[in-house]
Amino acid sequence: MRNYLTRQAMKALKASVVMLTFFGLAGTAMADKKITFKTPSAFGTNLPITGSTSVYFADVLERVSGGNMKIKMFEPGELMPAFDIHQAVSDGQVQAGYTCGAYLGGSLKEAIPYCTMPFGPEPHVMLGWLYEGNGTKLWEKFYNDAGYNVKVWPLAIYANEGAGWFTKRIEKVEDWKGTKIRIGGFAGGTVTKLGAVPTLIPFGEIFPGLEKGVIDAAEMGLPANDLEAGLHKVAKFYHMPSWHQPYTIIEIVMNMDVWNGMSDAQQAQWEASVRQANVWSMTHSNAIQNAALKTLQEEKGVEIVKFDDEMLKAMRAAFNETMDELMATDPEVKMLMDDLTAFMEDYKAWENIGSIGRNSLWD
Amino acid sequence: MRNYLTRQAMKALKASVVMLTFFGLAGTAMADKKITFKTPSAFGTNLPITGSTSVYFADVLERVSGGNMKIKMFEPGELMPAFDIHQAVSDGQVQAGYTCGAYLGGSLKEAIPYCTMPFGPEPHVMLGWLYEGNGTKLWEKFYNDAGYNVKVWPLAIYANEGAGWFTKRIEKVEDWKGTKIRIGGFAGGTVTKLGAVPTLIPFGEIFPGLEKGVIDAAEMGLPANDLEAGLHKVAKFYHMPSWHQPYTIIEIVMNMDVWNGMSDAQQAQWEASVRQANVWSMTHSNAIQNAALKTLQEEKGVEIVKFDDEMLKAMRAAFNETMDELMATDPEVKMLMDDLTAFMEDYKAWENIGSIGRNSLWD
Repeated sequence: MRNYLTRQAMKALKASVVMLTFFGLAGTAMADKKITFKTPSAFGTNLPITGSTSVYFADVLERVSGGNMKIKMFEPGELMPAFDIHQAVSDGQVQAGYTCGAYLGGSLKEAIPYCTMPFGPEPHVMLGWLYEGNGTKLWEKFYNDAGYNVKVWPLAIYANEGAGWFTKRIEKVEDWKGTKIRIGGFAGGTVTKLGAVPTLIPFGEIFPGLEKGVIDAAEMGLPANDLEAGLHKVAKFYHMPSWHQPYTIIEIVMNMDVWNGMSDAQQAQWEASVRQANVWSMTHSNAIQNAALKTLQEEKGVEIVKFDDEMLKAMRAAFNETMDELMATDPEVKMLMDDLTAFMEDYKAWENIGSIGRNSLWD
Repeated sequence: MRNYLTRQAMKALKASVVMLTFFGLAGTAMADKKITFKTPSAFGTNLPITGSTSVYFADVLERVSGGNMKIKMFEPGELMPAFDIHQAVSDGQVQAGYTCGAYLGGSLKEAIPYCTMPFGPEPHVMLGWLYEGNGTKLWEKFYNDAGYNVKVWPLAIYANEGAGWFTKRIEKVEDWKGTKIRIGGFAGGTVTKLGAVPTLIPFGEIFPGLEKGVIDAAEMGLPANDLEAGLHKVAKFYHMPSWHQPYTIIEIVMNMDVWNGMSDAQQAQWEASVRQANVWSMTHSNAIQNAALKTLQEEKGVEIVKFDDEMLKAMRAAFNETMDELMATDPEVKMLMDDLTAFMEDYKAWENIGSIGRNSLWD
């Protein structure tokens, strides 16, 4: 009996050592800490693309990490105001945050183009600047210089928000005069030069604001977002093209100490999941907009008003003037604009030689 | 002694059970089998983007899986001829293969557009069709119907190969007459209609073929590839834009049984690594071409010859004729073309309304 028991115990022990060795060889990830990222969002997670990309990302990350990393999302305002997310992540109150650079734009103007900017690049070109140019390096530098202890990634990236919902047509440059429009960032400065009166009221006040005539116009989101918000009920003229927002980025920030505490495999899993969210938001956003536009036009009685070349040139000139003034006093904004402009010019030089052109011959 | 030994053995056993339980909680990935994917490549892995994306992917996959999944690449011809890779993966001789659909084009014409096609979409639009449209579903169906037991993904995706190296200028449609050009796929059929004589000699014969006058012209790769290959030494006229190859996809195929044997986490890790390679190849390829073009022009004495609108319209008409003939006899090609065309039209309708246009106002 004694021998039997000992033998059985030793056998079990040996087997478990073999198993441990096997597991040790089979998966180095097993030593990884489980991490739950408490993640407040600045955008309702049900909002197509703008919000829902964070849900898509959370799902990918959980699967890619074999359940090892989880995102626990919080809706806007649930934990803190949207504008406080960067600080809360930096302070370690939460591990991560889903927000946009423009929300820091009051004090940190160089963060604005990391969300959107008039006459900027198309999304796939912006991704090029972020990953292959100096885009991300500068982004990290700006946040770091401003005292934020965070790492940052572009998560959702998509194209062409509508140029705005108007209760009247804007057909000539003079039509801007006195137009009260909900718009912010560098676009707000731009339309001011054309005589408009920009104001940045919150999302929730757009609908009643248009309804009651407090504002005459408002830019909001992608056609699919705007359709869901029902803005056609209070403004019939949907203006295009997207001069003010040719690309949009919704970022994810992580506390730098949390990042540094992750294993190599976890960091690689995070990065790959970010890229998968990039591809999804870029392709999915474009795939659903034409159907939304059709519904708006054919079922909701919306009229699309297109800014013509003359109007776009006037807005471009006003934008340049706005940026020149800002760059004269803000060297970080100048550094960013010079770098991004050089990247875009290089890209376009190649595209102008190599490409058959987007709409030239297929249509 | 008896009791002591038994106690020690039982203690060790208990400890190991605790450890197993701990590991079981900490990482579900630990039960994953280690997989080494023997992966023949149809393209030299040192070839920028076209080949090197496979190396980038292998590195990402290994890190994302914590060393659990490894790609063992084989150079072209090392294990088998490039044209045999799909069959070898299907047969289970190797786990995966890095190749392109056009290599099946002799018997499977509907595989050609999964590599490239004249007047096709830009890469980011092609990605949209693959991931958000019916592109991947049809791809899997075509391979499956043809008897291949494989799964397939777009790995490298990039834009605008040069339209070809010529020993003379092609300025009018008549200049094509009698031009012996190395070109294949649907583009070969297209230039035939203009009087050219296409031939598909292997990569290695392009340089001596141009040098000895066996051919007058050859399409090859991206400017960065062509610069490295030194084609400017044997042909001075580099033609643009990329009418014949506006997008290129190099795919990765995996044996279906290998795929089905992977855990959920491994499958998710593979998918995310594929997306990361998509983003890298798309952004990196565009970021390095303008510098290559500049070197070709400024240091190597290459003259860029741009096809004008009249020439492009003639080629577009010849391409349409080629495809109409093919679609009349090949229902799979028709199914693919109808679906892709509808996706592109939908995308372009949205882009024409929403976008400020690529080169209109920033330049």
